[in-house]
Amino acid sequence: MPRPLVSTRGIEYPPAVPDRPLILVTNDDGVQAGGILALAEAVSPLGEVWVVAPDRNQSATSHALTLHQPLRVKKHSERVFACSGTPTDCVFMAVLHLLPRPPDIVVSGINHGPNLADDVSYSGTVSAALEAAIMGIPGLAFSHVGLNAWDFRDGERFARDLTAKVLAEGLPEKGYVNVNFPDVPRGEVKGLQVTFLGHRFYEDTIVSAKDPRGKPYYWIGGSGYQFTDIPGSDCSAVHSGHVAVTPLQADPTDREMMDTLRGWGIESS
Amino acid sequence: MPRPLVSTRGIEYPPAVPDRPLILVTNDDGVQAGGILALAEAVSPLGEVWVVAPDRNQSATSHALTLHQPLRVKKHSERVFACSGTPTDCVFMAVLHLLPRPPDIVVSGINHGPNLADDVSYSGTVSAALEAAIMGIPGLAFSHVGLNAWDFRDGERFARDLTAKVLAEGLPEKGYVNVNFPDVPRGEVKGLQVTFLGHRFYEDTIVSAKDPRGKPYYWIGGSGYQFTDIPGSDCSAVHSGHVAVTPLQADPTDREMMDTLRGWGIESS
Repeated sequence: MPRPLVSTRGIEYPPAVPDRPLILVTNDDGVQAGGILALAEAVSPLGEVWVVAPDRNQSATSHALTLHQPLRVKKHSERVFACSGTPTDCVFMAVLHLLPRPPDIVVSGINHGPNLADDVSYSGTVSAALEAAIMGIPGLAFSHVGLNAWDFRDGERFARDLTAKVLAEGLPEKGYVNVNFPDVPRGEVKGLQVTFLGHRFYEDTIVSAKDPRGKPYYWIGGSGYQFTDIPGSDCSAVHSGHVAVTPLQADPTDREMMDTLRGWGIESS
Repeated sequence: MPRPLVSTRGIEYPPAVPDRPLILVTNDDGVQAGGILALAEAVSPLGEVWVVAPDRNQSATSHALTLHQPLRVKKHSERVFACSGTPTDCVFMAVLHLLPRPPDIVVSGINHGPNLADDVSYSGTVSAALEAAIMGIPGLAFSHVGLNAWDFRDGERFARDLTAKVLAEGLPEKGYVNVNFPDVPRGEVKGLQVTFLGHRFYEDTIVSAKDPRGKPYYWIGGSGYQFTDIPGSDCSAVHSGHVAVTPLQADPTDREMMDTLRGWGIESS
């Protein structure tokens, strides 16, 4: 499917993907994280790789855009930049300022930890791919569901193959893709499954305590996560050792619910 | 449509909306903003109103959740709290800690400025309603599309009527509602339209300058916004003087695109 020539942000793209695609790599764990190094290496055979990533951990920053303060950018090398903002800021800075031209694809990750089910909307990693989709650029987010230790080597292979496929095929308008690698020993990944977002839940808690000056503070907790085993969902796929590939849509309009609301008789001419 | 008894976050709800609904009011402009006072007053005839809102401007913080630092809460009065976090943090703190029981509805706004088209995903105001939807609580976000001056009086009436309607009817699973009031003189609102998200674009810019120490900084700009006039879209509705009521879905899975990806032959058993 051809990419629109002018995106929602009015960016003009070259008419076709050139011989050597320009690939923007970002994440939310920060430019120094092992996962982004793995991803940049994984996709480097496919084109010219540029890295623009947060200068620190920006987990759970969702699709936040920094409008009310300036950003700093540090050039690490010819095509590697650290930015003081969120992953969405990084995509913004990269596309509008740092890169020689808009990228042909944005890949985000590999996140150190899962981005499954409802959690995708909190995720900075996934939101970088969402920002790409809004800009009319194909976006993919990659996460490794391990919680403490991450072997990215199997993931690298799948990330490269999927990125190549999306470069060749394109994505539907405002579509982006969320990918989670299972936490299994190397070589034991059972293959890919195309999934929908499943259902996770936590034992949510607010930890309440007092600071050294006796003033109360609160800290958002959440542990002991569980998931409902729904066949075909991303949670169930990674649990059974598969790579979960979930297509997402940047336009959250609920067309069915439009009819529901109209049925309430609230409209006027 | 009845609300699920146990939400995605494992919160147990009372089996039915009691005689006097509990209404949580929040926003992203901060607890002192005129828009949240207007909204709290507007819905106060419908039930017991609790306000838990950011202690400062949290615009464009999207669905960010504060996991890596503590939160502070200041009690302004019996049922009004200011929280140092994002709108999503406020909903989280309210539901899990501050309120006597989970609210029957969450209303967010009235935002000082539009939340239309793709901009909804950056919005803290809209994300508070998204957080409600994820928790299994009906959520509505209200915004006034004025850019400099806001008369909330017409909006108050529509906000009260819509909130009452949603309290009576409920919302589909993971559904939430985004409402924008047009910027027209008082009494000239033409009524409600059920809409889908439209298409806006900016002349995006990165302002680059040097700080007093000679170091470069960057500031994300974006002015001169325009919209494509698509009949039935939220942008077109407010432009023609209507209240735009857009139903949104917290699950962004693109079911059609699942078939597209399967057609690539990437799946394995």
